[in-house]
Parts: sequence; structure tokens; C-alpha cells
Amino acid sequence: MAEDLRSQEIKNPIDVAEYLFKRLQQVGVESIHGVPGDYNLVALDYIPKVGLKWVGNCNELNAGYAADGYARVKGISALVTTFGVGELSAVNAIAGAYSEYVPIVHIVGYPSTVSQKNGALLHHTLGNGDFTVFSRMSREISCAVSMLNHQHEAAMLIDNAIRECYLHSRPVYISLPSDMVTKKVDGDRLNTPLDLNFPPNDQQAEDYVVDVVLKYLHEAKNPVILVDACAIRHRALKETHDLVEKSGIPTFVAPMGKGAVNETLPNYGGVYAGDGSNKGVRERVESSDLILSIGAIKSDFNTAAFTVRMSQLNTIDLHSYGCKVRYSEYPGVRMNGVMAKITSKLGKINIEHGPRPNNDIPEKETSSSEPTIKHAWFWPRLGQWLKKDDILITETGTSNFGVWETRFPEGVNAISQVLWGSIGYATGSCQGAALAAKESNVKRTVLFTGDGSFQLTAQEVSTMLRNKLNPIIFVICNKGYTIERLIHGWQDSYNDVQEWKYKDIPAVFGAPEGSVLTYRVETKEEVEKLFRDEEFSSGETTKMRFVELVMPWDDAPAALKAVAAAAARANAANAS
Amino acid sequence: MAEDLRSQEIKNPIDVAEYLFKRLQQVGVESIHGVPGDYNLVALDYIPKVGLKWVGNCNELNAGYAADGYARVKGISALVTTFGVGELSAVNAIAGAYSEYVPIVHIVGYPSTVSQKNGALLHHTLGNGDFTVFSRMSREISCAVSMLNHQHEAAMLIDNAIRECYLHSRPVYISLPSDMVTKKVDGDRLNTPLDLNFPPNDQQAEDYVVDVVLKYLHEAKNPVILVDACAIRHRALKETHDLVEKSGIPTFVAPMGKGAVNETLPNYGGVYAGDGSNKGVRERVESSDLILSIGAIKSDFNTAAFTVRMSQLNTIDLHSYGCKVRYSEYPGVRMNGVMAKITSKLGKINIEHGPRPNNDIPEKETSSSEPTIKHAWFWPRLGQWLKKDDILITETGTSNFGVWETRFPEGVNAISQVLWGSIGYATGSCQGAALAAKESNVKRTVLFTGDGSFQLTAQEVSTMLRNKLNPIIFVICNKGYTIERLIHGWQDSYNDVQEWKYKDIPAVFGAPEGSVLTYRVETKEEVEKLFRDEEFSSGETTKMRFVELVMPWDDAPAALKAVAAAAARANAANAS
Ligand SMILES: Cc1ncc(C[n+]2csc(CCOP(=O)(O)OP(=O)(O)O)c2C)c(N)n1
Ligand SMILES: Cc1ncc(C[n+]2csc(CCOP(=O)(O)OP(=O)(O)O)c2C)c(N)n1
Ligand SMILES: [Mg+2]
Ligand SMILES: [Mg+2]
Repeated sequence: MAEDLRSQEIKNPIDVAEYLFKRLQQVGVESIHGVPGDYNLVALDYIPKVGLKWVGNCNELNAGYAADGYARVKGISALVTTFGVGELSAVNAIAGAYSEYVPIVHIVGYPSTVSQKNGALLHHTLGNGDFTVFSRMSREISCAVSMLNHQHEAAMLIDNAIRECYLHSRPVYISLPSDMVTKKVDGDRLNTPLDLNFPPNDQQAEDYVVDVVLKYLHEAKNPVILVDACAIRHRALKETHDLVEKSGIPTFVAPMGKGAVNETLPNYGGVYAGDGSNKGVRERVESSDLILSIGAIKSDFNTAAFTVRMSQLNTIDLHSYGCKVRYSEYPGVRMNGVMAKITSKLGKINIEHGPRPNNDIPEKETSSSEPTIKHAWFWPRLGQWLKKDDILITETGTSNFGVWETRFPEGVNAISQVLWGSIGYATGSCQGAALAAKESNVKRTVLFTGDGSFQLTAQEVSTMLRNKLNPIIFVICNKGYTIERLIHGWQDSYNDVQEWKYKDIPAVFGAPEGSVLTYRVETKEEVEKLFRDEEFSSGETTKMRFVELVMPWDDAPAALKAVAAAAARANAANAS
Repeated sequence: MAEDLRSQEIKNPIDVAEYLFKRLQQVGVESIHGVPGDYNLVALDYIPKVGLKWVGNCNELNAGYAADGYARVKGISALVTTFGVGELSAVNAIAGAYSEYVPIVHIVGYPSTVSQKNGALLHHTLGNGDFTVFSRMSREISCAVSMLNHQHEAAMLIDNAIRECYLHSRPVYISLPSDMVTKKVDGDRLNTPLDLNFPPNDQQAEDYVVDVVLKYLHEAKNPVILVDACAIRHRALKETHDLVEKSGIPTFVAPMGKGAVNETLPNYGGVYAGDGSNKGVRERVESSDLILSIGAIKSDFNTAAFTVRMSQLNTIDLHSYGCKVRYSEYPGVRMNGVMAKITSKLGKINIEHGPRPNNDIPEKETSSSEPTIKHAWFWPRLGQWLKKDDILITETGTSNFGVWETRFPEGVNAISQVLWGSIGYATGSCQGAALAAKESNVKRTVLFTGDGSFQLTAQEVSTMLRNKLNPIIFVICNKGYTIERLIHGWQDSYNDVQEWKYKDIPAVFGAPEGSVLTYRVETKEEVEKLFRDEEFSSGETTKMRFVELVMPWDDAPAALKAVAAAAARANAANAS
């Protein structure tokens, strides 16, 4: 009753669900991923009502991966699941987004607040009347949890969750009880857009850091820049680009930073990851007397099993949460403002040129008469075929390491999960990325996944078809879990998988005759032919393209072999 | 070093992983479900070593569902996943097992204790050095969590976890760090089997309860027995069977108790669930002056949206955790011992006979000239085709309600998730159940799933093929989420699904030519022909059978319509 009175006082009352979806629309979301369930059905009615699109995934984990891919293209995304069964199915995707800094607004349809208060024994509960248990689990992997249990705070909690999601670039959790969907909030709030600007740094502190950094930069004999994931995920790409271009400093990327810089620049030097990098790169980076490290995540795979050699005495670390120059820490001074000022105040820098990566096929491969497709041959060859602004998704497995050898054209958005590393991610993510691409007028979305990984989330090809998406999908067919074989169990049957007829998948999932182009390529010759095929390579066709890319079961990219060897050494050390 | 010394003092040292898998073997586990990952690979080597079988599922959620199905046939099961990505993918399956009392030992391959102590920035972490976060999440849905971080307590923690799992019939969580796998424990412990007996009741209290129950039973004019899920899940089936048979009291089952009693007994009366039951059943149960309720779970779907009408004054509740006679509570007095004594001391009981369910097709259906397959026709017809000891898995959706109309032959094991209700469960569960059936020499495993539900976990058909299982699979093709349409969004597109060529699925997943029989049935005539087909119905063939069962999109079992209507009424009341 009190709440009804309150509604009457609102000048421009709109329903909570409408408010929520309009706010999402304002921050750039055009499509909502997820799966229906009886606790969210009423809310789903509002999606077309406000002019958004409902994707309708095959399951919630895949929907979560798709939302992740969508967010990596469009800056933020939304996922709707149902209480218990739905949300928990998506937990691994949300944890991945938390780990890798991807902003997903996860909206969970809850039982009515009345049922919750009564502790009703409802389906999708643990049978114990506790309606907070799943939100407690999600709290561990969300940067904000907004439980919409009261009308008067609903709009505020929604605004807060979306803002936190965007600014921290991590998932947030919003509970939407079925009876809260139609409660009224003040629609006039929507006239004031959410403030999504990072709070500015303390200017005095920022200037201080800039001076220190500039001093070291100007003194350095052979500085390098190393760009990593957080430059992308914490929205510092513009500042990074400006600095890299204006300074001309030799610039490298960590594996997770792939795609962060324009790899066609003359000062782009390649991928640096300790023992996983090629010799030229390693020598150039490790002999540098100053490394300007932007947004580093020093995880095992991103550092080729902790084999990077960078002295903290020679390192300047720039982060979203603060900066560190040698051993001096400046917490709270965000990198964006610092980089912008460094670029504008930059004086003369000593440049010692580094390697210039290209997509030349290694001599050993060009001279080989073997027809099979080897990783050493394929990944540079792929680089020749890629186009400006392609979205390129690679899966944990051989492809995630192979792509270290691919020099990108400008503007490539490279999507992968080097830290979280959940297989099946890439296929789900591809659905979201391809949809985001369509909405953003990006021409091509290219997926590389492994035969093992594909089997976890294959049904999302169905969602791509349902949403008329046209990605180019490569499934690397190498008879199982090659990456795992390199770590343990070289020929053990647990690293085998059931042999699917992969390219028949789209037809089984209901692709209309002629709407999908399918291929099986087993030789370099066939790859050449495929890459020359205009319809296959086109950014204009509406057709999905699906390729079985057959590679030897025992072949792997050099970087993966190096990482596996380093990991094995570390394991052995730990075990003793 | 200290630990090495300790190993030397052990008389019969064996590795932790060997100990764990041997213990599982001792309690009846013959196959292990799961997905490999680098943190569990070394442990997997021990599975064939001790003579167990590795299943190798397509993904972890499905593996969890499969382990659930396996446990519902064999009494307990085991699941192996990898840290973070793997375990979190399975969380929804584990939560379901927790909710529905299914004992699964969930073993998670962890990074080495050394890496954990160092807070190393490893793949599959949140990047924050916290190795306890995922176990904290699992604690909410596990009845025990055993973290194997120290050699000296490993065997004890393993024993404890398996015992808790079995006795509470709920999942437990065991972390197995990669360096703990090969640590030594005392193999002689294995000579003493785990004590899996329920602690006996306090005899005086038990006798007291038995006397009170007998007094009421003997006084009652027209008692009935109502059997529910916990009779099955808490291992009280023998005691239940004995009581039902010896007493001759009209006996009904709640939907979750389906399969708990021998439905060919003359005193079996049918499914009681308030407004979801047929008139004869409802009248008989609701007019009874004493209801002996065994293992009740009074959840919404299990009570047709809380429409059961049983006065507590007329009710005796028997549970695993205690008994309640009218309003007198006897906590800690477990039902098993109480029932055994009631049966042995039983005197003369007043019997007022109840309805005798059969599998006769309703008149309205037999007289109809319509060829389409309606629910009202199909489910009793199915009852005629089922055989003794069949395993029957039904999915949340129309099939879970349709089966209320199927009277079972003796010994049918009915598997479903009426409380947790996670769709996709049934297909995963079918893989585990079919494997368990094979190991237990049960002839037929029959799955009913919906087209919507099937899409969540379809790849487990691949695992069935890989493991050479021969279930009979029905996919109800009714153009989407019919159960959801009944609740909200009758013709809304969010309740549609992509139309798959379902019966082509086994071939795409690599079924050898001729190894799978596939069918599409659209009329009653075709169903009749199918059911008459000996090869289709055989319990001896090694062939999987896969049926597209086409039903009208707008048809549903009567019970489902009743529940949806009651739920809608409740929602409306809550919303106002
Ligand atoms: C959800 C999840 N389960 C298990 C793993 C462990 N894992 C990492 S890579 C991999 C095998 C990938 O095989 P495939 O996709 O065929 O890659 P490739 O053969 O190209 O290496 C597995 C099982 C994981 N990373 N994530
Ligand atoms: C994991 C999960 N996601 C979503 C739901 C919500 N839900 C319940 S039933 C259902 C539709 C099932 O459709 P189908 O299998 O086709 O059944 P039928 O048409 O026979 O009713 C959905 C989406 C759920 N129960 N579990
Ligand atoms: Mg592979
Ligand atoms: Mg359906």
C-alpha cells in the first residue's frame, strides 16, 4: 500500500523493467543475451517494447560467453537468466568475465518478493527457503550486487550497478523479482544519462607521476613499450595509441594485449612473453633499460610460465588502479590521464629500433614438400588473409598460441581468454561478437576453435543461425586435446575426443539449404585455394562459413611448446 | 621433508589418488565422469590403474548431470573437473544434486599446494591469488568440503567426504592439488571398508514413535500412505515396500515419489498432487482421516502449486531427519527404523479401497479420429509399452507432468528433477543412467526430453556414442518451450526455438553407419507401429534408438495445465 501511494507521487512513472532496459540501451546495449525461465518471462516482454533485441541462446553458459564476446566489441553487455538453474549455469562465464575484466550486467529473474519473504518451497531452490544463497555465490565474481527488493531504491540500484559495471569493467549482478518488474519508478531519471567518466586523478599527483615518468623516459637509452590486456579492458586504447604513435618507441604486446596496438606501425615489434617469444623480440625487450608497461597481467600463460625477464628497476607500470615507477608506488593515479599528459609533454626519446614482425612463412615451411598444414606455416599465412577491423576470436588450445605468430592488419579486435582459459568460450563468444559486429557495421568475425573445445558449446552455432549471423568459423581438427597432450598424457585416451562430422553441424541445427558454406581443408594447397575464394573471404555475404581445418594431432605452435615445457619444469620443481 | 619422513613410516604406502579412487570403487563406483584439465591430468592416470573407467564428457555441466543420473541408479557417483573453469561449469548440476539429495563426490584438480601458498597468478584463477574462492562457492551446495592440502590428513578427509556424501545423500567437494596426487598414504586403511550404516536411532525414542504411529494407524478409519522423493533418496525403499505390501493400505505417490512403490500392487492408487491429481485420487486422499507421509518434499511443482489439502492433524510425517505425528515432533528419529518396526508390529488396519490406476486410454482419445499425438493419449500408452526395471528419465517440461499419467510396471526407476528443474538435465542424466544400467545389467534406459531442453546439453549424445550406450531417446518436438507458454508468453518468440534436425544428431556426432536407429513419429498410428517394432523395443540390442516424437505446440498434459493455472493464480495474488 505504501508503495502504491509512492507510485502515485511519481510524475512520469515507468515500470522497473522498462527503466532497466532503457538504461542498458543508453549505454550502448542493443541486444540482450540469455535464456527464458518462468521467473524472468514477464521481464522479457519489455525487451522488444523498448526496442531491444532478444537473442535467445541455447543455454546459459553459452549465453554468458556470448555476452562476454558482445561486451568486448561494444563495451558492455547484458545477460538475462532465471533464478538458480539459469544463473548458476552461467557462473563460469561470469567468473571468466570477472577474471578478464569484461563488463556484463547479469540480470537474474527472481521469485516474487512475497514468495521470498515467505521462504516458499519453490522450484529452482535448494529447498531450504534461502533466497540469498545464489547471490552470495555470485558476489565472489561480481563487482556489485544489486538486489531489487524495494521499489523506492530500484532505480538507484540499477543506475549504480550499470555504472560500476562500466567503470570497473567487471560483471555486476541484478536480481529482478517477478513482482518488481511492473513496479513504478521515475522515468524522468532517464533524461540524465549515467555519468560513465572515470573520476579524474588528483591533478597534483598525476602531474608528479608524469614528471617522474618523463624524466626516466628522456634519460633512457633504449626504452620499449609493452602493452597488455588492461590497456584494452580499462579503456585506455586511445591514450595508448597516441603514445605509441607519437613517441615512436619500439612497442611490444603481451599475448593478452594482442590487438591493442596497430601492428602495421613501423615501431611495432611483436609479441613478448619471455621464453615464448622469438629470439629477436626477447633480446630487444630484455636488453631494454626502460620498459613502459601498460596494463600488465602477469599470469602464467601471458608470461610463458613466468619466464619474462624484466627488472622492476627498469620498469614503469601503468594501471587502472595506480602507477608504479621502479619501486615507487602511486596508488589511485589512473593510467589514462597519465598517458595523455606524457604524450603531450614528450620530448626527444632515444630510439633503438627493434624487430619488425611480418607474416612471412618460415623458410623451413616454404621449402617443405609436405602437404599437411602445420602451425608454423598456418598462422603467418592467416595474417596475410586477415583484413582491417576483423574481429578474431581464438580458443584456449593451439589457436590461442598460434595467433602469437600472426601479425595483424590495423584495427583487429582479438578476443581470447588467456587468463581464465575456459574452453568452449570461443564459440559462445563468437555468437556475441558476430552480433555486435553486425550492429557496429564490422564486416568479418573470424573464429578459431579446437575440435575438443568446440564440443563444449557447439549448439551456439544454432543461435548464430537463428540470429542470421555470418561468422567465418574454423574448427581445428587434430583428434583431441593437443594442448593437454603437451602438458601430460601424450597419447592417453582421456585426451581423445569423439570424432564429429563438424561441418555437418550447421545443417543439423537447421541452416536453410545454401545458407552456409562448408569446407574441409587438409593441405596447404587447399588453404591457399580457400583464402583466394572471394565468397569465402567476403565481408559482404550473409552466409556463415564453416571450415574443418585438419592439422596433425602432434603439431603445435612454437610458443605453446615453449610454454608447456616451462610449465612442466615448474611442475617438476613443485613436486620435488 | 617432514612429509617424506612420514611416508617412510607408512607400512603399505600408496598414492593419494590411488587411495581416493579405490575408496570410490569400494562404495560401488565403476565409472568416473568428468572432463580433463591440466590440474587433474596426473590424477586421471590412476583411473584405469585401479580398474575404473573414465567417461570423458563433452563438458562439465553435462558431466555433472551424468554423475547425478549415474548416482540415482548406482547409489553414488564421482565427478572429476579442473580448478575454476571446470568446477564452476558444473556448479548448477551440483546444486541440483544438493537440492534433490543425490550423492556425488566432486573431485576438483587444484594447482599445486606450492603455487597456492605463493598466491601464483595462474590460469583459471580470478587473478587475485585467492585459491579458496571457488571452494567457498561450492560450500553452499555441498554437505562436506575436504581440502586435501596436507598429506597426513588426506586419507581421513577422503573417507570423511565419501561417508558424508553417502549418508546425507548430497554432493561433497574434494580438492586434489596436483602435487598431492602422488603423496603417500597408508594403503592398509583400505582393508577396513567405510561404515556406511546410518547411526541407529535411540531405541527408546524409536519405540515411542512406533507406538504412537501404530496407535493412530489402528484407530484410523481410512488411512492412506503417501510416498515421496526422500523415501528414494534417503534409502528407505525397502522399508517402504515392506510396509506398503504388508499393510495393504491404499498408497499414493507424490510426483517426486514416482517409481518409489510397486505400481502393480492392488493397493497402489496413483499420483497425488492436489489439483494436479485426477478426481478419484484427490477424493480418496483428501477424505482420508490419516495420511502416513513418507519422505515428503512439499515444493510447488510437487504439490501442484501448493494445492494439496492435508491437515496436519491427520498427518504422520516420516523423514530422514526425524518424525512428526500430528504436531508432535521427534527430531533425530530416522524413518527407516521406525517403518521397519511398524511393519513388523502391524495389527489389523481398516482398509477403504482407493482408485486403481491403469494405462487405459481416455475415452475421448480413443474415439477421436484425429491422427496427431496428444499428451492425454500418449502417456498411458507409454505405460503399456514400458517393461519391468526400465529406467525412465523425464525432463522438466511436458514430459515431467505427462508421466503422472503413466502407470509403471514393477521396478521402474523414474529419474527427474521436479524440485530443481534445470532443463538439459535429462539428456546428461541419461548418459550416466544408461552407463550405470549397463554396469548393473538393467536392460533399457528410456529418455523423454523436450526440443527446447535437448538443445542445452545435446552433445551428451556424443558421450553416449563414445561409451557405446544404447538408450532409447525421445525428443518431444513441439516447436519450443510449451511449458513456458502455459505460464507466460503463449505465442511470444522468446518461447520459440531454432528447429533442429534432431534425429540427424547421432550421425553428426560420429555414430557409425547402422549403429543408431532413428525415427520420426507424427501420428498415433506411427507410435503404435514403433512400439510394436521388436528391434526398437529390445533390451538386448547395442543400438541407440532416437525418436522425434512430434506433438502439437499447444497441447500439454492435464497435470501441467492445472499446475500452470494454479501458479498463475498465485502469481496474480502475489502481484496485487
Ligand atoms: C571448461 C574447461 N574444461 C577443461 C579445460 C581443460 N582444457 C584446456 S585446453 C583443453 C583441450 C582443448 O582441446 P582442443 O580445443 O582440441 O585444442 P587443441 O587440440 O587445438 O589444443 C582442455 C580440456 C578448460 N580449460 N576449460
Ligand atoms: C537451465 C534452465 N534454464 C531455463 C529454464 C526455464 N525453463 C523451464 S522449462 C523450459 C522450456 C522447456 O521446453 P521443452 O524442453 O521444449 O519442453 P516442452 O515443450 O515439452 O514443455 C524452460 C526454458 C530451466 N528450467 N532451466
Ligand atoms: Mg584439438
Ligand atoms: Mg518443447
